[in-house]
Amino acid sequence: ILKMGGFVQAMTERAMISLIEHDATLAKAVIAQEPEVNNLELSIDDQCMRLLALRQPAASDLRFIAVSLKISTDLERMGDLAVNIAQRALGINHEAPLKTYIDLPKMAEETQKMVSMALNALLKRDAEEAKTVCESDDIVDAFYKKVYLDVIALMQKDPSAVSRGVALISVSRHLERIADHATNIAESVIFMVKGTDIRHGGG
Amino acid sequence: ILKMGGFVQAMTERAMISLIEHDATLAKAVIAQEPEVNNLELSIDDQCMRLLALRQPAASDLRFIAVSLKISTDLERMGDLAVNIAQRALGINHEAPLKTYIDLPKMAEETQKMVSMALNALLKRDAEEAKTVCESDDIVDAFYKKVYLDVIALMQKDPSAVSRGVALISVSRHLERIADHATNIAESVIFMVKGTDIRHGGG
Repeated sequence: ILKMGGFVQAMTERAMISLIEHDATLAKAVIAQEPEVNNLELSIDDQCMRLLALRQPAASDLRFIAVSLKISTDLERMGDLAVNIAQRALGINHEAPLKTYIDLPKMAEETQKMVSMALNALLKRDAEEAKTVCESDDIVDAFYKKVYLDVIALMQKDPSAVSRGVALISVSRHLERIADHATNIAESVIFMVKGTDIRHGGG
Repeated sequence: ILKMGGFVQAMTERAMISLIEHDATLAKAVIAQEPEVNNLELSIDDQCMRLLALRQPAASDLRFIAVSLKISTDLERMGDLAVNIAQRALGINHEAPLKTYIDLPKMAEETQKMVSMALNALLKRDAEEAKTVCESDDIVDAFYKKVYLDVIALMQKDPSAVSRGVALISVSRHLERIADHATNIAESVIFMVKGTDIRHGGG
């Protein structure tokens, strides 16, 4: 899971660089990494099924395996979202950058911080760090709303900005969803460590 | 799970009606249903954990419980997406409809058909019907691309259409993701019935 997490993190970082630096080669390299993420998901799920069938794990071991089945899906979706960002980067590669790039790198940085912390919390079985991840989700949501409104204002003033603008809104939406998945992982860590389900305001 | 599925399906249908018919009361009613979906997810996961811990299920029973942990997450996200559609409906409620509504109801119909079939395949443990769901995903993807390009063209011609246009692209994106989750559920059904993992071109 940590290997898959590191892999997805690197994909997201490279996807954002491909967007900001108009690097089509890098964008294509990110898109080409999707099968490896998919294989990692299948491999994790397969190992979970074997452990459940052969070892009949109990208590925190059982919770670890149950959350692993959820986390593998979260990470696979995060990989898909990195690929989507790279596809958007390719799509607007030939056009001049819109000034709202300014907020997207900061938003990407916050998002990546959440992903790092979520994986670290999993590694160290640290429910406190996981809780910090859940609390950080609002920061990324606020970035999304700001990018969204800024880009709409730009497009209303300048119709030639429409296709780039829509692409940038998509990228910020993808980042916001990557942060959501980091939050899901953090919630899974808390459930694994404490045995209480804090999703949807519980616990 | 089937109860949760039916609930989410009804939410999606009502969210689309609230959009097309400018019905703010209905949109708010859909948004208010989110906690119930969340509770259903927590309840399903809790039952899965108890069954795994107390019954040590094997073979197809074990697969059923493992996929239930994934399906509960898919359904919860589908409920979130229905809420997102209702929020978009509220956001553009005071503006005149854009003509691209024309494709969104058809797209919603195709999406709902996939969701129905996926839940039916789960109920009947029917791998063939599940396979049909996976194959239908391309139809909804094609609708998404068409709506996307149509709306961009509209916004380029008419800057006053920008905020409605972006909202409609979001709605079509939400529908496309609901169809993706229906595909995930269908893949889970095939894994449950056959014991082979067809995700990512496998099986």
